[in-house]
Amino acid sequence: MNIAIFGTGVVGRMLASKCSELGHGVAIGTRDIQSSHGSEDLKQFLAGHSEISLRSFPDAAKFGELAINAVSGANSIAALKMAGADNLRGKVLIDISNPLDFSAGMPPTLSICNTFSLGEEIQSTFPETKVVKTLNTMTAALMVYPSLLPGDHNVFINGNESSAKAEVVDLLQQFGWKAANILDLGDISASRGVEMYLPIWLRLYGSLETAVFNIHVVK
Amino acid sequence: MNIAIFGTGVVGRMLASKCSELGHGVAIGTRDIQSSHGSEDLKQFLAGHSEISLRSFPDAAKFGELAINAVSGANSIAALKMAGADNLRGKVLIDISNPLDFSAGMPPTLSICNTFSLGEEIQSTFPETKVVKTLNTMTAALMVYPSLLPGDHNVFINGNESSAKAEVVDLLQQFGWKAANILDLGDISASRGVEMYLPIWLRLYGSLETAVFNIHVVK
Repeated sequence: MNIAIFGTGVVGRMLASKCSELGHGVAIGTRDIQSSHGSEDLKQFLAGHSEISLRSFPDAAKFGELAINAVSGANSIAALKMAGADNLRGKVLIDISNPLDFSAGMPPTLSICNTFSLGEEIQSTFPETKVVKTLNTMTAALMVYPSLLPGDHNVFINGNESSAKAEVVDLLQQFGWKAANILDLGDISASRGVEMYLPIWLRLYGSLETAVFNIHVVK
Repeated sequence: MNIAIFGTGVVGRMLASKCSELGHGVAIGTRDIQSSHGSEDLKQFLAGHSEISLRSFPDAAKFGELAINAVSGANSIAALKMAGADNLRGKVLIDISNPLDFSAGMPPTLSICNTFSLGEEIQSTFPETKVVKTLNTMTAALMVYPSLLPGDHNVFINGNESSAKAEVVDLLQQFGWKAANILDLGDISASRGVEMYLPIWLRLYGSLETAVFNIHVVK
């Protein structure tokens, strides 16, 4: 499957590398190809992954049969608008972003929460795209290498369309997630829950002194 | 130790019963003793626990060497003001409330979050009381019977004073919590994290179809 990954940061590169390793066609989408080529990290990454192409947001969106939003929360809506509603129409869009607001320093607050969420805002801005929120509750490496942690721990998934969620569950299983550890929290409004989990994640990150942790729901 | 428990609901009664069973002196505090005596649930509870007294908020606060706020989030500040800053001065106050707002129906939103929290509001309203937030991330039965769930799972704790947190850790261990499963998230501002965990808790409650679940932090 051809996958478009929006965002050239650590999360975007980690997902691109894993999807490519799994045999998918991968294009990384960026706002400005010229300035992205100026980034040393990205230059090295692309040099090591000749099968992954760097494209403009709209070109990446056209390429992808499925798209992944790995742009920062603050820039997600603008980036997806550049990718274009037409190019995303009818496709599954995995949203892994968090609406973190660093403008007042650390710790960040959420720019949107409680009665709305970024996942919902993306879905309502692109009503003909099937938004599925997942993977936003952990550090990048764990998203695609869940076995970095011993034993069972969970990834959450939510969205309005069952068929779209099934497609994402399949991709998560390719990443190494056991079916039993993928928890469906319901429709896209559950994005409030998984995004509002970030403040406790940030506190745990501070206490545990590592980002490589996750939660296991015990029942 | 004499413990004041504010709130006559399920959570208050569960904590009162456990603290009493552990040999502590227990007074349940209520806004209006006469109307509380009219509650059938409470009447039955008190009939079965003759060693537990029902008192006004200020009388319970005077009695307690340590106090527990088990009043609903919406009524917590008013109840604690009735208990009285003088009666709570210098004492540890365990806050297990969540600022849930049910005014617009289900699911509830939070009446305060993101840049402030109920735990912080209580601490700033009662600066001479040592507020420790804990136990708000799970259903009442698990708070005092953690072994209802198999294996390891966590309770969080946060507050500004280490000595107060140590006292609460001791009480949590009496409740059955293993020391290794009690995670200190830092100062009282970490209440934002544990209170903003509620929306995902509510979603999990919907998905799992039981309230008897908790999370284990895996690292």
